[in-house]
Amino acid sequence: MEKADIGRKILSANETYALRNSQLLAAHEKRCFNIISSPGSGKTTILVRTITDLAGSIRIGVIEGDIQTDLDAQRIRATNAPAIQINTEGACHLSAEQVNRALMGLPLDGVDIIFIENVGNLVCPSAFELGENGKIVVLSIPEGDDKPAKYPAIFAKSKVLLVNKMDLLAGGSQVDFDLDRVRIDARRLNKSIEIFPVSAKTGAGMQNWYDWLTDRVRASR
Amino acid sequence: MEKADIGRKILSANETYALRNSQLLAAHEKRCFNIISSPGSGKTTILVRTITDLAGSIRIGVIEGDIQTDLDAQRIRATNAPAIQINTEGACHLSAEQVNRALMGLPLDGVDIIFIENVGNLVCPSAFELGENGKIVVLSIPEGDDKPAKYPAIFAKSKVLLVNKMDLLAGGSQVDFDLDRVRIDARRLNKSIEIFPVSAKTGAGMQNWYDWLTDRVRASR
Repeated sequence: MEKADIGRKILSANETYALRNSQLLAAHEKRCFNIISSPGSGKTTILVRTITDLAGSIRIGVIEGDIQTDLDAQRIRATNAPAIQINTEGACHLSAEQVNRALMGLPLDGVDIIFIENVGNLVCPSAFELGENGKIVVLSIPEGDDKPAKYPAIFAKSKVLLVNKMDLLAGGSQVDFDLDRVRIDARRLNKSIEIFPVSAKTGAGMQNWYDWLTDRVRASR
Repeated sequence: MEKADIGRKILSANETYALRNSQLLAAHEKRCFNIISSPGSGKTTILVRTITDLAGSIRIGVIEGDIQTDLDAQRIRATNAPAIQINTEGACHLSAEQVNRALMGLPLDGVDIIFIENVGNLVCPSAFELGENGKIVVLSIPEGDDKPAKYPAIFAKSKVLLVNKMDLLAGGSQVDFDLDRVRIDARRLNKSIEIFPVSAKTGAGMQNWYDWLTDRVRASR
């Protein structure tokens, strides 16, 4: 008779902190989403609009990851939402340990959702779990419709794809972008990914994203 | 009397290959530039237009770095320029060893300049020397004017900054971008960086970039 091999996985330091973060979030019944994209796709603008439009219904706290500067945290704090800035000083992604310290600094019982805005990088952050409930990938129209094919990992792992800067596709646009190609390539990698075309600048399409978030908060209560 | 301390630096594997690459390029009297940017800033479009516009005066070969797909090498080969595709299979930057193998595959004596198009990532590729004569950073208008401040390393290390997609700033544009802020922040990091605002789509401003390249080729002859 064969003995069952009970595998015991050795956790890396990052995985250990990611597990602590997910336990902390579960204990407080909070939802946490890790937002990942290239630099300049509009992560902070999406957050500022989301915080403002949902004020009164969903309370949001933010952990801001940047290599240098606290420009993004300043933009979040201007909405009166609590924001903790992490400067990675050259590192290309946030670690779960950095997020653990930031979570300790946030008023967890005063918020419903914590967003982690990762360092602008479509590659490395996808490989580091932070203890979040899900990853959100942002792709903006000017980056081009070939990005899910060329940078598949983050599209394969995300719960939601926000296709931002849809306003740049409006009439008379000089930007070429085939939204159907993005849908097909992203769903080939990830059958269950939710895809919301939005403009954080004009507000177009944002309600679908808000409805998705509202459902997540209800499910955690 | 103090003895002089003759420092002998131990080279990493990457540095060893970078040194071999620079020796190989010098032996063939070729110039090589490492192009670095976020995904979707227009690196391949800049290369396609540069190859086409300089046809007959400067012969160009390309080493294409991508995580997945050979979409970019296909676009380069459509111009009849020689192109070698490297797929990093998840890695966030090209290594000097990968570039060494690619250089062996290029017809070095049939080209004047070799461009290395790195993986789309504004962070990691800046830390890995490939043996090139210089780095070229591309920043596109929709990415925003705060990027030199937020991602300083690559702006500090580059010989040239191409500010691409200037056409998106044309009359009636919905894009906010302060070119003076970029100039000030980039020059604060790097006094000697050359800054060329261009549109690889319309061709506007590209002649300044071509003149710079032509001077580099003359200097190597």
